[in-house]
Amino acid sequence: MVVEVPDVMRAAVLFGPNDLRVVEKPVPRPAHDEVLVQVAMCGACGTDVAIQSEPFPGQPPYGSFTPGHEWTGTVVARGAGVDEVDIGTRVAIHVHHGCGRCRNCLTGSYTACENYGDAEKGHSATGFTRDGGFAEYVVHNVSCIYPLPDNLSWEESVLISTAGTSVYGLDRVGGLIAGDTVVVIGPGPVGIMTAQTVRALGATNVIVVGTRQERLDLAAALGATEVVNAVTHDPVAEVRRLTGGRGADMVIESSGHPDTPNQGLQMLRRGGKLLILAFYKDPVSFDLSFANREEISLFTARGEGRRAVGRALQLAAAGLISGERLVTHRFPLDEIQAGFDMLRSRQGKPMKVVFIP
Amino acid sequence: MVVEVPDVMRAAVLFGPNDLRVVEKPVPRPAHDEVLVQVAMCGACGTDVAIQSEPFPGQPPYGSFTPGHEWTGTVVARGAGVDEVDIGTRVAIHVHHGCGRCRNCLTGSYTACENYGDAEKGHSATGFTRDGGFAEYVVHNVSCIYPLPDNLSWEESVLISTAGTSVYGLDRVGGLIAGDTVVVIGPGPVGIMTAQTVRALGATNVIVVGTRQERLDLAAALGATEVVNAVTHDPVAEVRRLTGGRGADMVIESSGHPDTPNQGLQMLRRGGKLLILAFYKDPVSFDLSFANREEISLFTARGEGRRAVGRALQLAAAGLISGERLVTHRFPLDEIQAGFDMLRSRQGKPMKVVFIP
Amino acid sequence: MVVEVPDVMRAAVLFGPNDLRVVEKPVPRPAHDEVLVQVAMCGACGTDVAIQSEPFPGQPPYGSFTPGHEWTGTVVARGAGVDEVDIGTRVAIHVHHGCGRCRNCLTGSYTACENYGDAEKGHSATGFTRDGGFAEYVVHNVSCIYPLPDNLSWEESVLISTAGTSVYGLDRVGGLIAGDTVVVIGPGPVGIMTAQTVRALGATNVIVVGTRQERLDLAAALGATEVVNAVTHDPVAEVRRLTGGRGADMVIESSGHPDTPNQGLQMLRRGGKLLILAFYKDPVSFDLSFANREEISLFTARGEGRRAVGRALQLAAAGLISGERLVTHRFPLDEIQAGFDMLRSRQGKPMKVVFIP
Amino acid sequence: MVVEVPDVMRAAVLFGPNDLRVVEKPVPRPAHDEVLVQVAMCGACGTDVAIQSEPFPGQPPYGSFTPGHEWTGTVVARGAGVDEVDIGTRVAIHVHHGCGRCRNCLTGSYTACENYGDAEKGHSATGFTRDGGFAEYVVHNVSCIYPLPDNLSWEESVLISTAGTSVYGLDRVGGLIAGDTVVVIGPGPVGIMTAQTVRALGATNVIVVGTRQERLDLAAALGATEVVNAVTHDPVAEVRRLTGGRGADMVIESSGHPDTPNQGLQMLRRGGKLLILAFYKDPVSFDLSFANREEISLFTARGEGRRAVGRALQLAAAGLISGERLVTHRFPLDEIQAGFDMLRSRQGKPMKVVFIP
Repeated sequence: MVVEVPDVMRAAVLFGPNDLRVVEKPVPRPAHDEVLVQVAMCGACGTDVAIQSEPFPGQPPYGSFTPGHEWTGTVVARGAGVDEVDIGTRVAIHVHHGCGRCRNCLTGSYTACENYGDAEKGHSATGFTRDGGFAEYVVHNVSCIYPLPDNLSWEESVLISTAGTSVYGLDRVGGLIAGDTVVVIGPGPVGIMTAQTVRALGATNVIVVGTRQERLDLAAALGATEVVNAVTHDPVAEVRRLTGGRGADMVIESSGHPDTPNQGLQMLRRGGKLLILAFYKDPVSFDLSFANREEISLFTARGEGRRAVGRALQLAAAGLISGERLVTHRFPLDEIQAGFDMLRSRQGKPMKVVFIP
Repeated sequence: MVVEVPDVMRAAVLFGPNDLRVVEKPVPRPAHDEVLVQVAMCGACGTDVAIQSEPFPGQPPYGSFTPGHEWTGTVVARGAGVDEVDIGTRVAIHVHHGCGRCRNCLTGSYTACENYGDAEKGHSATGFTRDGGFAEYVVHNVSCIYPLPDNLSWEESVLISTAGTSVYGLDRVGGLIAGDTVVVIGPGPVGIMTAQTVRALGATNVIVVGTRQERLDLAAALGATEVVNAVTHDPVAEVRRLTGGRGADMVIESSGHPDTPNQGLQMLRRGGKLLILAFYKDPVSFDLSFANREEISLFTARGEGRRAVGRALQLAAAGLISGERLVTHRFPLDEIQAGFDMLRSRQGKPMKVVFIP
Repeated sequence: MVVEVPDVMRAAVLFGPNDLRVVEKPVPRPAHDEVLVQVAMCGACGTDVAIQSEPFPGQPPYGSFTPGHEWTGTVVARGAGVDEVDIGTRVAIHVHHGCGRCRNCLTGSYTACENYGDAEKGHSATGFTRDGGFAEYVVHNVSCIYPLPDNLSWEESVLISTAGTSVYGLDRVGGLIAGDTVVVIGPGPVGIMTAQTVRALGATNVIVVGTRQERLDLAAALGATEVVNAVTHDPVAEVRRLTGGRGADMVIESSGHPDTPNQGLQMLRRGGKLLILAFYKDPVSFDLSFANREEISLFTARGEGRRAVGRALQLAAAGLISGERLVTHRFPLDEIQAGFDMLRSRQGKPMKVVFIP
Repeated sequence: MVVEVPDVMRAAVLFGPNDLRVVEKPVPRPAHDEVLVQVAMCGACGTDVAIQSEPFPGQPPYGSFTPGHEWTGTVVARGAGVDEVDIGTRVAIHVHHGCGRCRNCLTGSYTACENYGDAEKGHSATGFTRDGGFAEYVVHNVSCIYPLPDNLSWEESVLISTAGTSVYGLDRVGGLIAGDTVVVIGPGPVGIMTAQTVRALGATNVIVVGTRQERLDLAAALGATEVVNAVTHDPVAEVRRLTGGRGADMVIESSGHPDTPNQGLQMLRRGGKLLILAFYKDPVSFDLSFANREEISLFTARGEGRRAVGRALQLAAAGLISGERLVTHRFPLDEIQAGFDMLRSRQGKPMKVVFIP
C-alpha cells in the first residue's frame, strides 16, 4: 500500500516567545527506523504552554520548531528497516526515543536518557527536541509507535501517553496494588487517567482530591470511589477518616501545588509510598523526618518509560480506562492560538483541548 | 458481645491412613493472640486427600488430628491481646502463622517459615500442623484472620485462600502485568482463581489450557479470554498461534502434570516468566538451555504469603474475582467420607467440595 | 551450662526530664521466646540524648524506664522455647521485635510495625518501649539476637546495629551498587559505618562529605576514597568535579542538617537515588521538580529491618567493615551522666561513647 | 589524534564446519555510532568451539564470517556521532548491541533482544552475528565499549565480559548477598569469575564445587572460602555439612552438567535462589515439587545485560576481581587452530586460551 504524500503541509511554528503560528512547511521524510504519520489529532498539555513562554533544554530554534507531543494518526510512509507497522495503520505514540547507548537507556530508562536533546547521538523527543504533532505530518522513530486497537478513537489515543505516565509511575514504585487504597491528588488529565489506571490494576479504594468540583465529578464518574474537595474539607483529615484512621497505601501527587506533596505524606500509612507525577515552580517544604519515621519512600517518574504506553493501550482496549471524556474542546489546527488562549485563561473550564489538522 | 460456646463439639479426626471419622471432641480455647471461630464451611483440596493417605511433616498424631485448612466462620471468643476483630465478625483466613523469628519470617516469607511445624517456637499451619476446620470450632492466630466483607458469601470466603496463592505468586514474580498475555495451565480451583486474578490485575489476554472441557467452559465463563483443550489441540502451537507467534508474557502452571512445566516454557516469549503453583509426583524434565537462551526465569510460591489473602478479599469484594461458582458440592460435616470419596473417584465432576458442620 | 544470676542489679533509670541515674533494680526474667543477657557494653547515640529531654512514643513512665539500645553481652538464661543460642554465647542484637501480626510485620518490615509500643500485642523495642542496656542485665526477644563471631570485639558488636541500618537502607533502595559512585553526607557513626558498607558491597568510589575535619580523616582512614570538607568547599561542586561532571549514582544523607537533602539531590546523576538515614528538626526544602525531571527517587529506612544486622555481622567478621575505631570514649555505667554530658557538649570530640556495667 | 589504519588485515574466517583459517580481509570502517578497534587480544570460549561445528542463529555465511567475542584493544577510528571515547583509548567490550526498539531492549534487556540477528533493525552481536575479534581490527557499536582503566591488563579485559555475565546474573536475581553463603558449581572461567564477584559483593562464604582439582585449587587461590571435589565427595552432603545443615542462600550453576541443576536445588535453604549461567545438551531432570515446597526460584541470565561489564570493570580496577590468572595459554592469531585443538582435547589443561593478532 502506498499513500500519496504532498511536499508541503500546514504546521504550527514557534517564531518567538508565545508566538506560535500556523504556516506552510515541507513535509518531512522518514529516515532509517522512522515512520511518517499523517496527524489525526494532537492534544495540548501544560508543558505546551510552558515551552511557548520559555524554551526547554534541547528545544530547536525559533522560526522552525513545531511543538505538540500528544498526537496520533495514520502511518503513510516508512523509512528503511521498518516492518513493524504497515502503511495505513492507525497508531498511538510515546514521546521519547532514547540514544540507546547511555547507561540509562541501556538499563531501560530511555525517558531519562543522558543524551537528552542530542540528535547526533540518536535521541529525540517529539514536540520537545524535534518537530511534533501540531502539523499535518510528523516523523517519529518506530520504537515510539504502537498500533492503535480498532475499538479506540483518536481521542483515546491522544490521552494514552498520559496514561502511559501513570503506568510507568506504578512501574517505578513496584509491587502489586491489588486491594490497596490509593489517593490521587489533582484531577487534571494526569490525575484522572491515573485514578482509572490504579482501579484497573486492582486498587479497590481510589480517593481523588482536588479543588475544582467539576473535575472531581468527572473523576467520580470515571472510577474514583471517593472524591474530596480540598476547598471545603481538610484533605488530610478526610483521607484519614475514609481509611478508618489508618492512612492510604499510596498517594500519587499530580497537582503541582507546593503544599500537596507534604499533605500526601501525611495521608499515608506507615510504610506507604508517595509517587510524584507533577512539577513545581519552586522547591517544596517536605517533612523528611516524618517520612523516615514512617518509612515512606518517594518515587518519581519521568514520562512514559518501559513501553508503558503499550500497556496503557491494552487497558484502554479492554475498556478498563478511557480518556475520551476528558476531551472537552476541539479546534482546527489553524485556530491553535484560540485553543491555547482558552488553556491560559481557563475560560470554559477546559480539561483536554485537542487540535485537528 | 459474648457468645455462648459449648464444651464439646463434632469434629473429624484422622484415626489412621484414610480413616477420617467425625467424633466428639472438646472445643478448644483461644490462647494469647488467638481467636476461636465457629466454622461455617470448610473446603477440601487435593492436599486434604494426600494427608489422609500419608502424614505430612509436622502433622499431629493419629487419633487426635483434625484436618481442614479452607475454612471460614464467625469469631466467638478472643484470647488475651486481641482487639483486631470483634466477637460476631465473619472472617476469612490464611493457613500459615510463622514463628516470627527465623530469617524467612523476618523477611516476610512466613509461609516458608524455617520452623515449620515447631509449635513450641510459635509456628502453626491450620489443618496441617494443628487442628483445622473440619469441625464445629477451630482456634487460629489473629495474624491469619481477615474480616469478611459483608457482600461475600461463605463460599467466596472458602475459595479466597486459593486466590491468595494466586496473588502471592504474582507478588513473587514481581512487576506489573497490565496488558500482558498470561497463560494458565490447569483449570482446577487454583487455575480458575488465578485466571480471574490476572484479569483483575490488568492482564488483557488470559489463555487457559486444560483437558476437561467442563472446566474450560467454566474458565471461559469466569474471565478467560481464550481456552485451549490440550486433548484435541497441541497447546504450545495454539498459544503461539493465539499470540501471533510471539509467545506469552507469563505462564502459570497449576496442573501438576509432569509435561506441562516444559510446555509452559515453550509457550513463553523471550524474557517471559514461568510461575509454578503446582506439585509433581516426580522430578520433571525441563529444557534449561532453552530457558537460559530465552532468558526465562522460573518462580515458585508456597501458599499465601505477604498477607495476600487480604488483597484477594478486596478483589472479591469489588466483584473482580469470584469463587462461588467453583463450589459444586456441599455435604454436612457428618458425611465427610462421602465427600472425599467423590473427590477420589471424580464421580459427578466435583470442582470444589465443601463441608458444613 | 547454667550461670548464676543475682536478683538485683545496677541500672540507669530515667526519673524525669534529663534525670538519668544509676540505681538498684530487680534483674528481669526471660519469658517465652526471650533470653536474659548480661550486658558487656552499651553505646549511646543521638536518640538516647533526645529521649532524656522528651519521651518518645511508647516510652515507659519515668521512675522505671532504663534506656540503651546499642548493647551487647552474653546470654545467661533462656525462656521457654528458645534453643537458638546456648547459655554463654556472646551476642549482638537488633532493636525491634515486631508484633508479627500487622501488615508491615507480615511483609518483612518489622521496624515499621503498626503496633509499635503495644507490648500486649507483642511489640517491643529495647531501650525505647521496654528496658534497654544501660544496666547489668537485659531481656530481649530471641528474634533480635545474633551470635557474635569470635573474632569480633564488644566494640564491634556495639556498632553493628548502626551498620545494620546501613545494610537495611541499601536493601530498601534495591539493586546492585557494584562499581557505583556513592556519596555519604555526615561522617558520624551512621555515615562512617555506611561508607564502609557501600565499599564492602562493591561501590568503587565513596565520597564522604562533612564539616568536622577529624571525622573526615577517620572516614578516609576507614574506606572513603575521597572526602570533601563542606566548610571550605562547595560540596555539590566538589562532587560534580570528582565525578567528571556526571554526578553520583547514589547519595546517602546521614547528617540531619536541613540543607543536605537538597544538596544531595543536586549531587546525583539523572536516574540516581537518594537514601535518607537521618532525622530533621523541621520540614526541609526540597526541589521536587528537579527530582522528577532527573528521575531521582528518595528512599527512607527505619532502623535495621530484614535481619540486616546478621548481614552486617558477616561483613564485620570478614574484616570488610569495622566499628571499633569509632569508639572514642569508655565510661563505667555508674558515670553515665559524665558520658552524656560529653555527648551534649562535644567536649573531647566524642564519636561513639560506650558504657560498661 | 589520528591513527593510520591499513586497508587490509589478517583475520580468521570460518570457511565451513570446523574450517577456521587466517586470511587477508579488508579492514572494516566504522559507521555512525561505531568505533574501529585495533585488537590487542581475543579469548576463546566454549561457544567459539560450538559455532565452528554448527552455525548459531543469525550467524553470517561461511567464507566471510570472523568469530571472536572476548576481545579488547585500542580505538583507532570513530564513526559519526561518537565522542564518548578518544582515539587511542584502550577499551573493554560487551557483546550485544540491541535493536533499541523491541520490548526487551526498551525495558533494559538488550541481550534478549527480540530482533537478535536482524542487522537491518540495528541488532548486532560481535563474533556471533557480525565479524568479531579473531582479527587485527574490528568494528563495534559505541554502546558496547568501555574505557579500560589504566591498571588493567589486556588479559583482565578479555575476562571482563565473563565477569559481566556474573554481575548481570546477580542483577537478575535481585537483592543483596551481603553475608550470604553462595555455592558456585563449575570452576571454569565463568565459575571462577563468578566466585570472585560474589565475594566482592559481600558474600562471606563462597563454596566452589567441581571435578578437576587444579581448577578447584585456582578457585581457592582466587577467593573461594571452601572447595568441594565432587568426584571424591557427595557435593550436596558437603554443602549441607559446610552450612551447618541449613543449606546455601544461593547456588550458581555454571558447569552445564545435566545433574548439577538438581543438585544445586538440594543444596539450598528454604527460600534460596538458583541462578543458571550454563547451557545443557539435553533437557534436565528437575525436582519442581521440592523447589515449590522450599520456595526456591530459578533465575536465568543471557549474556551481560544492563551494562554489567562496566560494573565488573570497576570491581576489577579496585582489585576485587581478577581474570589474569585464568589465562593459561597465549597463541599468535596465525596459530588459531592450534589453540582450538588444545581446547577441544583439553591437553595441557587449558583454562582460558587467548589469541594475539
